[in-house]
Amino acid sequence: MKKKITIAIDAMGGDNSPNKTIEGLSLFLKEKTKNDDFFINLYGDKDKINLELDKFSLSKEFLKIIHSSSVVSDDETPLTAVKNSKNTSMWNCIKSQIDGDADISLSAGNTGVLLVISRMILKMMSQLSKPALAGLWPNKNGMNVVLDLGANIECTEDNLVDFAELGSALYKSLYPNDKPLVSLLNVGSEEIKGTEILKKAYKKLNTLSNDNNFIFKGYLEGNKIMEGSSNVIVTDGFTGNIALKTAEGTAKFITDNLKKSLTENILTKISLIFSYFALKKFKDRLDPRKYNGAIFLGLNGPVVKSHGGTDAIGFYHSIDLCYKIVKGNLLDQIKNNLNHLNHDK
Amino acid sequence: MKKKITIAIDAMGGDNSPNKTIEGLSLFLKEKTKNDDFFINLYGDKDKINLELDKFSLSKEFLKIIHSSSVVSDDETPLTAVKNSKNTSMWNCIKSQIDGDADISLSAGNTGVLLVISRMILKMMSQLSKPALAGLWPNKNGMNVVLDLGANIECTEDNLVDFAELGSALYKSLYPNDKPLVSLLNVGSEEIKGTEILKKAYKKLNTLSNDNNFIFKGYLEGNKIMEGSSNVIVTDGFTGNIALKTAEGTAKFITDNLKKSLTENILTKISLIFSYFALKKFKDRLDPRKYNGAIFLGLNGPVVKSHGGTDAIGFYHSIDLCYKIVKGNLLDQIKNNLNHLNHDK
Repeated sequence: MKKKITIAIDAMGGDNSPNKTIEGLSLFLKEKTKNDDFFINLYGDKDKINLELDKFSLSKEFLKIIHSSSVVSDDETPLTAVKNSKNTSMWNCIKSQIDGDADISLSAGNTGVLLVISRMILKMMSQLSKPALAGLWPNKNGMNVVLDLGANIECTEDNLVDFAELGSALYKSLYPNDKPLVSLLNVGSEEIKGTEILKKAYKKLNTLSNDNNFIFKGYLEGNKIMEGSSNVIVTDGFTGNIALKTAEGTAKFITDNLKKSLTENILTKISLIFSYFALKKFKDRLDPRKYNGAIFLGLNGPVVKSHGGTDAIGFYHSIDLCYKIVKGNLLDQIKNNLNHLNHDK
Repeated sequence: MKKKITIAIDAMGGDNSPNKTIEGLSLFLKEKTKNDDFFINLYGDKDKINLELDKFSLSKEFLKIIHSSSVVSDDETPLTAVKNSKNTSMWNCIKSQIDGDADISLSAGNTGVLLVISRMILKMMSQLSKPALAGLWPNKNGMNVVLDLGANIECTEDNLVDFAELGSALYKSLYPNDKPLVSLLNVGSEEIKGTEILKKAYKKLNTLSNDNNFIFKGYLEGNKIMEGSSNVIVTDGFTGNIALKTAEGTAKFITDNLKKSLTENILTKISLIFSYFALKKFKDRLDPRKYNGAIFLGLNGPVVKSHGGTDAIGFYHSIDLCYKIVKGNLLDQIKNNLNHLNHDK
């Protein structure tokens, strides 16, 4: 019998949990009703979780609950996290990977604490000096993997090269039929543009570019991220975080303005009758809940961070992301890609 | 008699010039038909400019042409620019400020060359160590000034403080009734977030914050740029360039998707009949041509760079921006703000 994909879920993290996490799980179970290739371990308060499982009439065929009485607070800082978070639902959820009980961990809890304790428990892969937080970001042809999104404020050229390998591995695990096309985010597309670190990373990536791991496409400017000519966008955590949040803010500004315009008078309200389904499709295509889930890469086990403020649909997409990552053999893809590295060490 | 606002325009820079520049000027003259407080100096090929002036039936009451037979090419690099650009329309346009013939210069030509020769001809203000490129960026309540947008890839904390003073001066010259609210772009709003340079700049700006020059609002994340809680957003040129271009790319992606959705079938096309005026207003509000014009700050004379690919309407907005900047006494505002500085030098 083939080993099942086992997903460890911190049921208690994020706003409105465990209600949201269990409702998200119910959507996942409904969608995967014909699959029997997965199993879910739920970490958190047994009574509260059982109450929610009953509410959504979920059978326990595909899941089990591992009781944890405490939860990482939203106010906890990474500095005090290690002392205060032992045996919380988040801690136990991550630790289960070390014990061989799960293939991946998912939490919507405190991001800073999750990064610190994941790194402490799972340890970094020996070839790397920094882990990275990667996200999904739509483009005209499909999806980008963008990293780092904020785990590392300052990066060397070797870190950026590592991120290219990690991001390409993630891309291949999620989209096995596509080729990873790596770009470095920069202020221009000419070779002379950018910082010294970018120029050195450019040279190294050019040497590493090949048909098996990734094709290096050179520099990419911010306005081309969504054009689809690349699909793995590499940058330091400061720039990546600013770019991602600026895109979020811009999208919100535009859709808020559109909503206002389309409801401003009786004529525009009539227009909505005719454009309802098209606008719904437009909204669905850009729904940020579909890209919910940042992936913490470079540890000896993958960890997915769901947005704390997302709802059940957003959390469902994070569970589905975990399922796809394990099905696509992310860890093997990463190991294979790191063999391909040739840092001057 | 009060001195007239004199704007020096490089009529030859950018795509489709001098047709676009003169058509833009015709829109400006039409709008300002009742004002007699300005004068335009046009730099470029006399014959070509005259041909366009005739095409748009422009009288020469408010303008004069200063003939330059050569033009800065789009392929010119900043490295060779100084040698090759002497006596071009761009060069003469900027030099006219030194000769006392103009208050501000405007060009849609080669950006790199414009920055290099502006700095060479106009020289930096003695209190500064770096000039900055500032842009306008809409927010929920009006407009942001954002800087630097790419003139300086790497910045010290003193550069960032200088940018805060320069940006506030520009904001006051454009919006004399509003107070400049300065923020530092960062990956979080807590004081412990970000690079060491940002933390030092934060401390200095906190000390400088006062009711006369600007109020310092602390750190700002990318998703809050358009929320309107600040209006002068300070960052290094690398981050500013990535943020601006990412916002442009996101806006294009969303509006392209919307257009596709609203024209996909007969029903949605009917809906357009009812929503036509509302959507037009929506489009107008977000029209990037309205924010066309980056302002080069910190030299002994202001220089405005119009987007090379913009059209006559975009160029009109750049001319209008020049007019407002001089009317708002930008140079005096900057001198006043720089007196307020207390760098440890």
